[in-house]
Amino acid sequence: MGYFRDNIEQMKGYEPGFQPPADLLRKCETAGAGLVKLNTNENPYPPTPAVLKAISEIKTEQLRRYPDPMGNVFREAAAKINGVEPDWIMVCNGGDELLSMAFTAFCDKKRPVAYPVPTYSLYPVLAQIQGCKALEVPFDEEFNLPSKLARTKAALTIVCNPNAPSGTVIETEELAELAAEIKGVLLIDEAYVDFAEQNCTELVKQFDNVIILRSLSKGYSLAGLRFGYAIAKPGLIEGLLKVKDSYNADTIAITAATAAISDQDYFKQTIEKVKAERKRLSEQLRAMGFTLPDSSSNFVFAEPPSATRSTGSTSSPQACSGRASRAKSIFDKLVQRNIYVRYWDLPGIENKLRISVGTKEQNDTLLSALKEIVSA
Amino acid sequence: MGYFRDNIEQMKGYEPGFQPPADLLRKCETAGAGLVKLNTNENPYPPTPAVLKAISEIKTEQLRRYPDPMGNVFREAAAKINGVEPDWIMVCNGGDELLSMAFTAFCDKKRPVAYPVPTYSLYPVLAQIQGCKALEVPFDEEFNLPSKLARTKAALTIVCNPNAPSGTVIETEELAELAAEIKGVLLIDEAYVDFAEQNCTELVKQFDNVIILRSLSKGYSLAGLRFGYAIAKPGLIEGLLKVKDSYNADTIAITAATAAISDQDYFKQTIEKVKAERKRLSEQLRAMGFTLPDSSSNFVFAEPPSATRSTGSTSSPQACSGRASRAKSIFDKLVQRNIYVRYWDLPGIENKLRISVGTKEQNDTLLSALKEIVSA
Repeated sequence: MGYFRDNIEQMKGYEPGFQPPADLLRKCETAGAGLVKLNTNENPYPPTPAVLKAISEIKTEQLRRYPDPMGNVFREAAAKINGVEPDWIMVCNGGDELLSMAFTAFCDKKRPVAYPVPTYSLYPVLAQIQGCKALEVPFDEEFNLPSKLARTKAALTIVCNPNAPSGTVIETEELAELAAEIKGVLLIDEAYVDFAEQNCTELVKQFDNVIILRSLSKGYSLAGLRFGYAIAKPGLIEGLLKVKDSYNADTIAITAATAAISDQDYFKQTIEKVKAERKRLSEQLRAMGFTLPDSSSNFVFAEPPSATRSTGSTSSPQACSGRASRAKSIFDKLVQRNIYVRYWDLPGIENKLRISVGTKEQNDTLLSALKEIVSA
Repeated sequence: MGYFRDNIEQMKGYEPGFQPPADLLRKCETAGAGLVKLNTNENPYPPTPAVLKAISEIKTEQLRRYPDPMGNVFREAAAKINGVEPDWIMVCNGGDELLSMAFTAFCDKKRPVAYPVPTYSLYPVLAQIQGCKALEVPFDEEFNLPSKLARTKAALTIVCNPNAPSGTVIETEELAELAAEIKGVLLIDEAYVDFAEQNCTELVKQFDNVIILRSLSKGYSLAGLRFGYAIAKPGLIEGLLKVKDSYNADTIAITAATAAISDQDYFKQTIEKVKAERKRLSEQLRAMGFTLPDSSSNFVFAEPPSATRSTGSTSSPQACSGRASRAKSIFDKLVQRNIYVRYWDLPGIENKLRISVGTKEQNDTLLSALKEIVSA
């Protein structure tokens, strides 16, 4: 018997997007060259000043004492904004913690998880950790909800909406039908929903089996804080609380997150700025010959034009292996210029780049670099 | 099939110690009466001023970006202090998260956990969540390491040292023997070790199967921050990293924890103050007729004198039911005075109170109240 469980022994951990180490950041700054980081979907704009103000008012007494295990001040603020009661909300140490809790609460050897693919690459890792089967149902080329998803009999069905890495969105009505059809729990991962035109909050009111995941990392520019939350009927929240670490969210995070979510004016302004840049970035990429679906998130998922600058069919199977190296080659050339986007060498997405929407300046730097690389 | 796994459906969650809600705190302040909170082993003294300073220097750019997934700046500081390499350290969102990760990594239906009891009441809850058997081996009355513990064949053996709620400590040599005898992993939960005269860091160097848990909640007065860490050989750390949330510790927590652990002078002064008050509190409780083992932690575990003020045998079975209500009755009377200690209505410890060591003033308030209650 080894020290670790077999499933842990055999698995590879989740690989987070590259975070530039402090010395690289310093090197870039010293060289007068900015590092353009568009690889992990951080919001390019800072959080509301109310966050730093709230943090500056933290007292040592609050650090000395345990946090409120439930983060009630945040629950009340989030409940108000989402039009539900506070006991429909559960605070989490980042949205990832809610995902982990859902696998723990709902899945095991006999209780599989199901989700459409390609999607957030953490789901299969959590399935391996929990030792449950992962039923992966492929999206079609347009990222429509696969009808098979309703028939998997999974204990937990996850739909990332807007989806990562495609940035596409599925209509609320379709997810309502899915929730009605399945017997298990439907977790709608709305980490990117702040950049979409709709959300699924209404579904938690209509269905007993729906959990909405929200994150403050993207829309609220607080990736460094680790704060997310669940919205669900109290029956599901109470069960999830049993698997929650008692004090999963710390006092500073609760305070800062509450300040952020309470400043809806600032939030909406930031979202509009990202959306405007997303539109511009998408248009310019398309003008360069990139193919990409309309994005409802803060990133775009773009397939580069073929190296021969042909404008013919971009999805013919013959072109695949050639284009596979095309996206990777562009990725590598961007890294040389200290521009970071995300690339996965995975079947079906091996010729695509996921590019976070940056500030106007960052996007301009990226677009100029791409122009040079693509026309070289 | 229910939404939840059977083991989750059937379990009760962990019950954290009472945290006074904001309105009660305000009420006490308005009435000019302090609330004396000695129920969750918080350090009565504030963290080093370096913590608030570090927090005040946080920039929005750091909040906008994801944290360093590994918390390397903390790892380096902690490695230096503990005389190991940084890759022997893993940061956690509180020590509880490391416990949870250990159950996930090592335990399942066929891989039980073992620990001596009574101990930290989170262990059986984590076993229920993970769906593994918990082999509970009773301590003797003096809280010596039970020899049976070496023969359970558990995949994970946990020893809380100093133990909660007893406050007692097991010698490093005995734990070395245990580590050598067992085939599975030995996790030594040193959440309270900062208040003891020794620790087990040397054992991670001697054994491949030892993990040390440390917390900044107690010794470093940072319960509100949620920060703990593991010390183990890289082989174990690498496996644990597979089950770690990518960004489990947030940027502010990493920064604040690094500031705290780097100010060892302040830390040592605080520890000495707690130890001095622990000595005084223990002596005064004994003078009042309470029975308590010597504590190596920041709390004492005290059995009240019998109601008849008899000085005879305090452990005769006949006295049990009478004395059971005695500790509970004292607990209730303390609550009426806004003094909170910890009480469990559990077999074997139903006539004991766990009292965190407070400031001189808090301890004096508690001792005066106890004097009145005990002599009433």
